[in-house]
Amino acid sequence: MTLTASPTTASPTPAHTPTELVAAFTAPQGFGDTTLRDRNPHAIELLGGIPDPSVLPATELAEATARVLARPGQPALQYSRTAGLPVLREWIAERERVPVERVLVTNGGFHGLALALQVVVERGGLVAVDNPVFPLFLRGLELSAGRVVPVPVGARGLDVEALARLLDEGLRPAALYTVPDFHNPSQGTLPSEQRHELVRLAERYGFVVLADNPYRELRFHGEPQDVEPFNRSSHVVHVNTFTKTLGPGLRLGWVVLPEHLAADVQALRSRHDSHSSTFVQAVVAEVLTSREGFFDDTLDTARALYRRRAVALAEALEREAPGAFEVEVPEGGLFLWPRVVDDTIDTELLAEHAADEGVLYQRGSYFPSGPGTDAARHLRLSFGDTSEDALVEAARRLGRAVRRQGA
Amino acid sequence: MTLTASPTTASPTPAHTPTELVAAFTAPQGFGDTTLRDRNPHAIELLGGIPDPSVLPATELAEATARVLARPGQPALQYSRTAGLPVLREWIAERERVPVERVLVTNGGFHGLALALQVVVERGGLVAVDNPVFPLFLRGLELSAGRVVPVPVGARGLDVEALARLLDEGLRPAALYTVPDFHNPSQGTLPSEQRHELVRLAERYGFVVLADNPYRELRFHGEPQDVEPFNRSSHVVHVNTFTKTLGPGLRLGWVVLPEHLAADVQALRSRHDSHSSTFVQAVVAEVLTSREGFFDDTLDTARALYRRRAVALAEALEREAPGAFEVEVPEGGLFLWPRVVDDTIDTELLAEHAADEGVLYQRGSYFPSGPGTDAARHLRLSFGDTSEDALVEAARRLGRAVRRQGA
Repeated sequence: MTLTASPTTASPTPAHTPTELVAAFTAPQGFGDTTLRDRNPHAIELLGGIPDPSVLPATELAEATARVLARPGQPALQYSRTAGLPVLREWIAERERVPVERVLVTNGGFHGLALALQVVVERGGLVAVDNPVFPLFLRGLELSAGRVVPVPVGARGLDVEALARLLDEGLRPAALYTVPDFHNPSQGTLPSEQRHELVRLAERYGFVVLADNPYRELRFHGEPQDVEPFNRSSHVVHVNTFTKTLGPGLRLGWVVLPEHLAADVQALRSRHDSHSSTFVQAVVAEVLTSREGFFDDTLDTARALYRRRAVALAEALEREAPGAFEVEVPEGGLFLWPRVVDDTIDTELLAEHAADEGVLYQRGSYFPSGPGTDAARHLRLSFGDTSEDALVEAARRLGRAVRRQGA
Repeated sequence: MTLTASPTTASPTPAHTPTELVAAFTAPQGFGDTTLRDRNPHAIELLGGIPDPSVLPATELAEATARVLARPGQPALQYSRTAGLPVLREWIAERERVPVERVLVTNGGFHGLALALQVVVERGGLVAVDNPVFPLFLRGLELSAGRVVPVPVGARGLDVEALARLLDEGLRPAALYTVPDFHNPSQGTLPSEQRHELVRLAERYGFVVLADNPYRELRFHGEPQDVEPFNRSSHVVHVNTFTKTLGPGLRLGWVVLPEHLAADVQALRSRHDSHSSTFVQAVVAEVLTSREGFFDDTLDTARALYRRRAVALAEALEREAPGAFEVEVPEGGLFLWPRVVDDTIDTELLAEHAADEGVLYQRGSYFPSGPGTDAARHLRLSFGDTSEDALVEAARRLGRAVRRQGA
């Protein structure tokens, strides 16, 4: 077969003006702009929160697929219900300790956010967000043309006291967005007590917390902070995903919804794409349930790898650029968030020099959602899918980039 | 692990009123209402357009999965681009004879419709639709709060002359929805000449044709009608899916977009769920490309099966309920659309009696999008996933149901 390109014919009448919804979408700026990457294809990339292939259960997924597709009638190839495959929903509900009716299976965490936003935020509504913030959330927020109110994030995640002051002064958001575990980008984890307080504020002032928790299972230091305040509250959508644990390419996640939102989110979701792939759900449910402890064992291996990489990168930064960065090894997740100590260093220029030297990362200036954060003085360095050797080399290149500003 | 259900706490402040978008959603009525099914779990179900498991390539998919997951670095488990996996997009583009840039991979045909609607139909906009119509399209249209203008459908699909008259009288829809091949529910196929005329009207009056083509590859009689008018026009979104050919549970389809819509549809899609499962795309691309002719061979087997079943059901209806139905064997697809000949028969009562007798189908009264159709005198009988023996038994039960009205 040969490809005969059929160009579209010239349009006598404009076919459409894009809808108001789509016309308001903004182009990616900074974060998500891949021009840097295209300029230096041989660079070491510390860009995305990408899990390492070696700790994704590829063999188990292939074996599970064979078993699933050998079942009589191959139900994995047929339609299934919008809320998700019962066996998968039940596994999730048990792990979350919530009734199964509150679990909706999604195509990954971002999907859960997009759905929740369109159900709880009226067009043009106010949404309080982390500052600094995961930038793609702001892009998703364009689905509701939401207006952003930044809330400071500190060393221990969202500054709930600052939020309380804003609410006390009259702020009435429809929703609040935060990453409670290993905050993206700044890596703090919201303590249990502040989670309870956040939920109390949501219940008192009538907003919905969008608790976005993709890195939750990747804790490699310290004690887990409780998700129970999120899962108990009628004012929280707890957004989760298998992306960082079983693989982003599956596109599979879930939300824990308050009972009173479950039907609405399902109704919206059914109008988009009916349901998540039965095939993917059946395969993932099969790996999760075929052997007791499979998921926790997989996580243990991953956590050990990410701990080694986090430490290796932090130590290499101290060694290769002594005194240049204030580095803290996070308690989990896939990023370091070092701060450039010397205020005379231009961090935008540093990112350019680093690209020249052959190391790419997300510069901190991509992350503020408003004024009042020193995010621009930071670098977001992903270590998830980079070997220790390459991380050390990346630190070496970063050291050279720092010294190009005479530091 | 034991399940401890944590009921959500009572809400001191209402967490939200649903957004205008969601509040306007209507509950399923008729089509999609599963109460009938729940009442008689042992009935023969001729309800949905469900492909038969025996003609879905389960073994090949399992083998392809093993190969895909054995690739170094397992790219199938990682993020991929919004538009779709290059190898899959290229296969589709070659088959559609369009440039690859005009192909966007989706989570099935319905997903393509939902995306296109939100890009081309302003909220509250006018949308011309088949009458009778695939009812789930109307549910999807609620995403744009679209207002429906019914256009008659005859024995050869959409009545393009009737549409031309409406346009001549001043109708200015943003979009027109039709199923061109083996119309759902009424089974006619729009001839090539009318496709050209429809596209000319769209270009002249500035609307976008949403050509929904899920059954296209299941032709088992007669000559294919050309899709080239759709794929050449700047005023058509050609919506396609692997649902009826490789399996609904994959949730994988595509749209052929006019160049000027491609960026907007991609921008919307990236805000929903980033991209379709890399895993599913990689597996499907692998089965499609691993052996020359695989897809066409798979289709040939399926077409032969569906032809036998269509004929078996039509013949059984003539035999078991002589003279009761006017039955035409369609040229493809998964449905018969027999008309009840005797005007004194109450077709609503017939459906109730049929359920009593143990055969479930979609009654024709679920399908009108406006007045002026005799759809309510028809039955939509799916034969896709029902054996010939069961189809004969279903016809027997239908015959008994007809005779309960003394016919």
